[in-house]
Formats: sequence, C-alpha cells, structure tokens
Amino acid sequence: MMKERVTLYDTTLRDGAQTTGVDFSLEDKRQIAALLDDLGVDYVEGGYPGANPLDTEFFTTRPKLRARFSAFGMTRRQGRSVENDPGVAALLDSAADAVTFVAKSWDYQVKVALRSTEEDNLQGITQSVKAAVSKQKEAAVDCEHFFDGFKANPDYALACAKAAYDSGARWVVLCDTNGGTLPHEVERIVAEVVKVIPGDHIGVHCHDDTGQAVANSLAALRAGARQIQGTLNGLGERCGNANLTTIIPTLLLKEEFAERFEIGVSRDKLTHLTRVSHALDELLNRAPNRHAPYVGASAFATKAGIHASAVLTDPRTYEHVPPESVGNMRRVLVSDQAGRSNIISELTRLGVNVDKKDPRLTRLLDEVKDKEAQGYAYEGADASFFLLAKRVLGEAPHYFDIERYSVAVDRRFAKNGGFEDLGAEAIVKVNVHGESRISAAEGNGPVNALDLALRKDLGAYQRFIDDVRLVDYRVRVFQGGTDAVTRVLVECADGAGNRWSTVGVSANVIDASFEAIVDAINYKLLISGAT
Amino acid sequence: MMKERVTLYDTTLRDGAQTTGVDFSLEDKRQIAALLDDLGVDYVEGGYPGANPLDTEFFTTRPKLRARFSAFGMTRRQGRSVENDPGVAALLDSAADAVTFVAKSWDYQVKVALRSTEEDNLQGITQSVKAAVSKQKEAAVDCEHFFDGFKANPDYALACAKAAYDSGARWVVLCDTNGGTLPHEVERIVAEVVKVIPGDHIGVHCHDDTGQAVANSLAALRAGARQIQGTLNGLGERCGNANLTTIIPTLLLKEEFAERFEIGVSRDKLTHLTRVSHALDELLNRAPNRHAPYVGASAFATKAGIHASAVLTDPRTYEHVPPESVGNMRRVLVSDQAGRSNIISELTRLGVNVDKKDPRLTRLLDEVKDKEAQGYAYEGADASFFLLAKRVLGEAPHYFDIERYSVAVDRRFAKNGGFEDLGAEAIVKVNVHGESRISAAEGNGPVNALDLALRKDLGAYQRFIDDVRLVDYRVRVFQGGTDAVTRVLVECADGAGNRWSTVGVSANVIDASFEAIVDAINYKLLISGAT
Repeated sequence: MMKERVTLYDTTLRDGAQTTGVDFSLEDKRQIAALLDDLGVDYVEGGYPGANPLDTEFFTTRPKLRARFSAFGMTRRQGRSVENDPGVAALLDSAADAVTFVAKSWDYQVKVALRSTEEDNLQGITQSVKAAVSKQKEAAVDCEHFFDGFKANPDYALACAKAAYDSGARWVVLCDTNGGTLPHEVERIVAEVVKVIPGDHIGVHCHDDTGQAVANSLAALRAGARQIQGTLNGLGERCGNANLTTIIPTLLLKEEFAERFEIGVSRDKLTHLTRVSHALDELLNRAPNRHAPYVGASAFATKAGIHASAVLTDPRTYEHVPPESVGNMRRVLVSDQAGRSNIISELTRLGVNVDKKDPRLTRLLDEVKDKEAQGYAYEGADASFFLLAKRVLGEAPHYFDIERYSVAVDRRFAKNGGFEDLGAEAIVKVNVHGESRISAAEGNGPVNALDLALRKDLGAYQRFIDDVRLVDYRVRVFQGGTDAVTRVLVECADGAGNRWSTVGVSANVIDASFEAIVDAINYKLLISGAT
Repeated sequence: MMKERVTLYDTTLRDGAQTTGVDFSLEDKRQIAALLDDLGVDYVEGGYPGANPLDTEFFTTRPKLRARFSAFGMTRRQGRSVENDPGVAALLDSAADAVTFVAKSWDYQVKVALRSTEEDNLQGITQSVKAAVSKQKEAAVDCEHFFDGFKANPDYALACAKAAYDSGARWVVLCDTNGGTLPHEVERIVAEVVKVIPGDHIGVHCHDDTGQAVANSLAALRAGARQIQGTLNGLGERCGNANLTTIIPTLLLKEEFAERFEIGVSRDKLTHLTRVSHALDELLNRAPNRHAPYVGASAFATKAGIHASAVLTDPRTYEHVPPESVGNMRRVLVSDQAGRSNIISELTRLGVNVDKKDPRLTRLLDEVKDKEAQGYAYEGADASFFLLAKRVLGEAPHYFDIERYSVAVDRRFAKNGGFEDLGAEAIVKVNVHGESRISAAEGNGPVNALDLALRKDLGAYQRFIDDVRLVDYRVRVFQGGTDAVTRVLVECADGAGNRWSTVGVSANVIDASFEAIVDAINYKLLISGAT
C-alpha cells in the first residue's frame, strides 16, 4: 500500500524562542538549524525577520539546509497596501524559501486585538499570500486561534482558511493558539475543514496547555491534516509547543502510523534522536528532562526490584519500544530500592562483569545504600558509581591521597561600591606513593582554583590528566534536617571527547565540589589504565 | 441534567515512589496523603505493605483521611492458597480500607513473567478478591498490561477483568503498563470492555511513554470508564503516570467535562492546586516544572512583546482558562525581548506603579537588558528585580556598603584518607552610614559563613533581619565562552512566613552567592520599611 507523506514543520527557532529563559544567539540558531536538518524535518522556521535585529541578520543569507527555510511574520497591516508594509517587505526580501504569515481567524480577535473588520482581515490574507507567491516564495498561513474561532463562528474561520488556500498558500495551518482545545474537538474540527480544503494542504499547530499537544497533533493527522508543526523538546511559550521529539518516534514506531504514513526522518536518523534532544539542552544550558518520552534518561529506566528482574527476562514487559530505536538505553536504577538484579545490570551496562552469587555484590549494595542515605545520587554520576564498584571489587588501584587543601576568596569593594579586587586561590597537598606534593593555583572561582591546584602536579600520573577539563557543574541543596546537605555533580571531558560525571556530598559546597573533582581524576586515571 | 460521578484514585505514594530520584520518608508519605485528602481525591493509595519496612509501617495505623486509604499488592502466588500467602496476608491485615491487587491480564505475561497457567491466574484473581471482601475490605484489581493483552488475546484479557468483577471487585482497572497505547486505541478498547462490565466499575491507569497519559485517561472517560488513576505532578516510573494535576483542572474547567461529570475536587479546592503541586516539589526538593500545564510558573507567562500587549488588553487572547481558577497567576516576563508593556505589567504585579510615559522606565529597561546580557535572570528572582526597579525609580534607601569580605575553607585528611578536620569561616566588613563594622563567623560551608557574618552586625538595621534565614540555594553554571559564568539563586524566608528570591552572577560562585545574599538583606530592609 502506498504511504501518505506527512510533513514536519519545526518552529523551535521561532515559537521555541518564546520559551521562558531561552534566548538564542545567532550561532545557536545556526547550530539548531543544522541539527534539525540532519534529523530530517521538512521545514525549519528560522524566526521573524524584521521583528528583531538577530532574526533579520539570520535571514540575510540562507543557511545550507536540505530542509525548506521558512520566515514567519504578520499579514499586511490594516489600512496599508502590501507594497507599503515594511513588515511584509522584510519577509519577502529575506533569504527564506517559504513565508509563513500569521493571520487572525477568530472574528472576536479581529475586532478586539486587531480592531479591524472581518473583510479587511480576509483581504490582508489574500493580498499577503499573493505578494509572496509573486515573489516566488512558497506561502503558508498560520490561522491563529483557529479552533476557538471555529467554535465561535465556523463560517468566518473557514473563510479565512479558504482565503489563504484560494490565493495560493501551499499550507493552511490550523493553530490552537491558547492550547486549550481537546483532542476530540481537534479531530472533529479538522474533519470539517478537510471537506473544503484538501488535507494535504492542511497543517496543525498545537500548544501543551492541557498536556495534550501531542495527542492533538496526532488527532489532526488522523482526521486528515498532513503537516504537523512543533518544536524540539517541546520548547515554546507557556507550556510549550507540540513536542516533535515525541511525535517523530510515535509516527515511525507505532505500527498504525508507520504503516499509513511516511516522514522525512528515517529509522536510521531516529537513532540520533536522543543525542539531538540532549544537544539542544546542552546549547540552552538546561538539564535534560529525565522523564521525557523516548529520549529521557529515565524513559527506559526501571527502579522497582520486581520490574527490574522482569525487564531483564523480557524487555517487552516494561518497554513499549526498543530503547535503541531512538538512541536511548535501558537503565535499571541503582537506588535505595536497589536489588541485586538492578546492580548487576547497571554494572553490565558499565562493562563490569560480576557473578550473580559474588559475595562482593552484597558489600557493594550495602555501600551504595549507605552512600545514598547520606545524599549521594548515582543516577547522574556513572563515573562515581563505576569507581565505587571497582573499589569494592578490588579492581581500582590506589593512585594518591589528599593530605589537605585550603581555599580562600577575598573581595574588596571600591568606595562607590563598585568593583575593586576579587581573588580566589587554592592550595592542595597530595601524597603520591609516599611523596608529598603541594601545589597552589589561582582561579576565576574557588572550585576552578581547587581543580587547577589538584591537577597541577600528580607526579607520574600527570600525563594522564593534562587534557581533562571541567565542563559542567551543578549544585543541589537539601534542607535535610537542621544542616543543609549539598550535592555537587561535576562533568568532565578529555581531549578524546570522553565525558564522565561524578558526585560529591557535604554540608560544605567547596568540600562537595572537591570530592567530585577527586573522583573525576581517579576515574580518568582508571580508564586510562594508569597503574 | 444529573451529573455522573468520576472517581479519582491517586497512586503518588505507590507508583509515584517509582520515580527516578524519589524516595519518600514516612513523614513525606503522611504529609502528601494529607495534601491529597485536602484537595479532594477519592482514594489515596499509600503503598505496598509487606514489600518494604517503610510501607508496612505506614499501613499499621490508618492516617486520618476522608479519602479511602488503599493498599497495593499482588494476587496470591501460584501454587499457594490465599490463606498461606504472606503477601496477601500483609494486605488484608493492614489498616487499609481498600486493597488493590495487581494481576496479569496478558496471556503472554502469564507465561513469560509469571511462568503460570491462564487458569491459575484467573483463580488467583477470584480467590484474592473474595478473601479481601470476606475481610470487609473494598477490593480492586489492576489488570496489568490490559491494553497490550487485549490486542493479543481479547478473550483472555476480558476473562481476567470479568473474574475480578464477578468475584466482587468494586473496581476493575485497565492498566497501560508499558505506556505505549494511543488514545484512540484506549477509546476503542474501553468501549469494548464496558459492554461486559458496567463503566462505573471500570478504572484506567495510564503512563506517559508517548506523552499521552492525560489524553489516554480522558479518552477512557469518554468511552465509559469512571475511575481515573494518576499521580500529583505526573510522578511515576519512566516518563511518569497520568498527571492528576493536569486532569483535575481539565475536568473542572473544560465545559464538556464539567457539564457531564462531577468529581470530589471542588472549584474552591481547585484554587489550591498550584500550591499543592509546588508543596510536593518542595517535599521532594525538586525545582517545580515551570512549563507544567495549569500550575507551572510559565503556564500563564507571556514573553513576546506583541502577545504581552494583547494579553493585557484581553486575557482570553492567550489564556485558555483564568490563572486564578487554579491558584496560578499571569506573568508577563521581564526578558531580553522585554518591551515597556512587559516591564509595566511585571511592576504592577509587584505593586510598583509607574506611568507608561515615565522616562525612568527606559532607564530600567536598559538596566534590565544590560544585566540579562551579563547572565542575570529575573524570572526566578522577583526580589532582585523589585530592588533594581526601586533603585532606578529612586525609591530605595541606601542602607549600607560592603567594604570587603573574605572566606576560607580548609580541610585536613587523616592518614587513612578519612575525615580529620574541615572548617569554613568568613569575615565581612560593612559600612553603615559612615561607620565600619567588621564581623566574622564560622559556618557549615562558605556561603553559610558569609551569610552569618553579614547578618551579624548591621547596626541600626539588625532588628529587621534577625529572623531572616536562607531556605534554598541554587547554582547554574553557563559555559559562556572561555570563562564560565555562575548564576546563584537564593531564597530567603522570615518569621512572618514571607519568602523572596534574589539572584547573583559572577565567575566566582562565592561572589555570586554573596551578591544574592546582599540583595536578599536589602530587600528585607526595604519591605520592612527601614529607613
């Protein structure tokens, strides 16, 4: 059976830029566009040229993309001709292949927000689309508030959609701007629309305000729409846009969709999805959502002992799709509830083979539980767990001892309260095989100074750690009882591109940081085969 | 028209306890049960007595709840009689009002996971339910993998459900254990089930592995099921369970559901939802999800300038429900893209009234943009923004100057690498109206020491800050260019129960922390009306 093509339209760089706390740089936009293009989306909406300097600059030259490069903006303003509308001009003069105009389609909105007439709004749509087409741009129209508009006045909502289609828009996109529409409403309304406009010209743009943006997008698809708009990781204003990172694997892995439809993302590219999702978070300096469908670190994680053993017997028991299909992996969590089977499969994942009956497993289990009771969490610190396991198993050489460290931070303020002097320095005294070595370093902060001092002179081991650098640093404070306990997670990387995470816990943030750094160095020495 | 009752069954304390990184203490369980009960859910599933000491203890005495207190566990093991099954005994002897047995309903699972026979599994269901009923416990059966089971062998899946119902189970719960079932499949299958078992005895238990647990739960409701199982904030293994924090407001605020159904949560209690959701995160020491539907800090936030002005003209433009209905509030973000209207409405929210034409607004806007370019983020630091605004407006008295501070952390390790000595001390020199005052303090960490030293002697202002304490502390490191920039968010509280957040930014974590603490003190003095 011939499959129908479903088009994916990504608006991460435009609607996604509306996310609280997200501000893309030009370089961010270039990198994200490349990620999306490599994944295989059909359209990359780059932004709103003319609305801000950054987007205007981004649209001066077309990035090298296989995907269509799309610009977003408003239809011509009321009372203006398209020719005399600088907003429209900015879109038509941009380096975009396609222009997506946003237009009202709810009569109430036309009156209240636009203070315009229904007729002028329709003309604005028609004239703007025609102007784009005559400039050899592919045109699309985002019908803002379409679903609310349809409920209030179906005739006018449809008239707006029709105006767009009749004047040559390739896509008429039905937007649930408030995000308040429910899946069965979307299904019903889209079914009405495709009676007057061919479904392969209908797109849908959903928001997650009732937690159903994905369901709404798929409901529209089932009702006949053939373009889905969304963003990577569901970025977007308020609760976010429809999450393409969830929709893509659902379309490719769920039989019913996979049999009927084809998309631009291949099964092979799908195995990059987890990496792409995390790469975006990396760019945004956000911690990835552990619980995200398909790509979250916990998406295929099992904690309960009973489930753990079952999932090892037969993955189908607790996995709706194979983790590898989206480039993710199975995890059986080392946790307070950890059983032997959890520990074993976690060790296997890290390449440590132990016999199920090995008495050392019990010692490791007790050790882990004891540590977790103190506030350690190994779920995000594989390297510390690996180190702990290797030590308990007696497979980790003892490289060095710390004799002492001290850190000082001083700041003097100028009379006007302004900046005068700020310094951070550290001294670390290590003992490498009976030989004491003391090093001092200045840093841009106390942790940086400690890190530099510790790695300054480890004698024979120095060569193994010269290329180590600290790439991420996170702190969590627990109001456990009277004294707060601080947990620090440190991520390091080396010249070969390896990355590893370690954990430290203390009431003192500096001490917790130091512990994590020492773990990171020991881990690097261990995997480098230092002896 | 008479409304149909929909029952809400919360499993936060059982399935929610499977969440990565979540480990409830006994006290946590008590507090969460109270939160749920106050909100108005019908069932509080407390855990799995007999499976671990904590749950067993939690079920020794019934907590004071209006809701039914439910215990979860397995049906009798194969080859055992109910009387001789310690697992079943633990459930029947517990202080629970209701017992929820989990049973296989997928023939494949019966063979693979249970290594049992279809017949024995059916008998296990019947005998377990009858045993509970004869002990005057209300019984329910969670049919594990029901949807996958139904697809593979509808007759056997239905036979399991029937066995539960016929033997006296009040509720037969259809579980999408893998979380891989799609909304229209749920709707179709539930419609089949309610032909043989009355819908007011059918419940649904969904997981979010395709991001559709909410849609699946509502689809089941539309198809005739009358109990929805879920968790607060969507806690749960892997991607989480159906999020009751999203489902409850949808049922109460979306006309179609509100007209047909009634639930135990009142419109009045609904206004506590945001507080309840955040209270749970507080207990779990997690940062609340800003983008959560209804209750997220960003759920009613607008960033784009154009949207901002529209939402102020008429909220309906970008709000699908009134924020107040769920105890949340509208926010127009102060951000890089901030326009005057954003700033004004944010100031209004904080009770600062400025005329739209006031030239000082431009200065404030520039100041904010400049700060944000340096890495400051005011979205999570209202107090720092308030302080900044008051200063630019010339409405903040100048209380004191910092002349200098210094912090030292020292640690010595015992020969065995064990603990020997760890100390943190700070010196702060402040100038209060021309008079220098120097104070020193020791703390359990450098930030604590600095905080204590700063608040030790502020002369005339001392009395205003005696009851201030630091309650939360967060650190984010940005890999901006070569040197990392550290942003610290500090939350303080006072004796009157006020809480306020401030921000500090520096390459040095100590310096950033100090800046945030100084802001916190200044804010407290300002709102206390110190002069």
